[in-house]
Amino acid sequence: MGIDPGLTRCGVGVVDGRPGAPGTMIAVGVVRTDPEAPLADRLLSLDDGLRAYLEEYEPEAVAVERVFSQHNVASVIGTAQASGIAILSGARLGLPTATYTPSEVKSAVCGNGTADKRQVTAMVTRILRLKEAPKPADAADALAIAICHLWRGGVKARIAAAVNKESSR
Amino acid sequence: MGIDPGLTRCGVGVVDGRPGAPGTMIAVGVVRTDPEAPLADRLLSLDDGLRAYLEEYEPEAVAVERVFSQHNVASVIGTAQASGIAILSGARLGLPTATYTPSEVKSAVCGNGTADKRQVTAMVTRILRLKEAPKPADAADALAIAICHLWRGGVKARIAAAVNKESSR
Repeated sequence: MGIDPGLTRCGVGVVDGRPGAPGTMIAVGVVRTDPEAPLADRLLSLDDGLRAYLEEYEPEAVAVERVFSQHNVASVIGTAQASGIAILSGARLGLPTATYTPSEVKSAVCGNGTADKRQVTAMVTRILRLKEAPKPADAADALAIAICHLWRGGVKARIAAAVNKESSR
Repeated sequence: MGIDPGLTRCGVGVVDGRPGAPGTMIAVGVVRTDPEAPLADRLLSLDDGLRAYLEEYEPEAVAVERVFSQHNVASVIGTAQASGIAILSGARLGLPTATYTPSEVKSAVCGNGTADKRQVTAMVTRILRLKEAPKPADAADALAIAICHLWRGGVKARIAAAVNKESSR
């Protein structure tokens, strides 16, 4: 399950698959919170919304996009708070929880760490063989994060397995 | 219960009292997480640590210092993630959860929004009639946040009660 953290719109994408193969989209959506509501209520709504996805789809791992301070300074704090809650939501269930930088996600999906949002959406649509592009962009990003984890996590797991095999000889 | 959010050191201070009167310190401490550990583990440790305080001391309200982007850019994201988890920890239990800016906390405790850490620690020690200054500074700040909420929250509650009384005549 990939999460594109945000306080007003938090993208969620669930993908089934394995490294090197095109995956299958299981679910995609956005958890929204009311920008006019008190912060405590918003964080609680976000936590509840993410928990509902985790309980419904029971993912094997959670991947969250890393927050950078280069972002809009006014929104970075809210995004960081949302990311903390997203990472905690996976960790609380004992799931492996990884973070990826935006450029890692773009590289994995587009082969180019500086791809723009349009390119990411187009590649996600193609990789998952969707009839329509997922909307809004937060949802497409969440699917890209899930694909990134599937592919990169798989490679890491294969390397770890090879190292183990080698060292157990 | 006041919380000075931080990912490596998160200050916690529990104060009993009412507006205008010196309060009594019930507990003070710091939840620490290992800077070398994966982020997911750190956020989970922080959540567990705060929950332990909430369960042990059953505060009536939680107050958290607001994070500002003026802070050190490298650490602001971790601090914001910690603050999200701190606010959520109170909200999840249904407790009223407030945030205060650093200058609101300093004004409440020192009468001066630009007081330094040393002054805050000295005033907290005096207000709570402690024999020794609370250490580290994160712990003293957490007590200052709790005092700020007690005094300011109390004033807000009195105004709300007066308005209600007036409007119900």
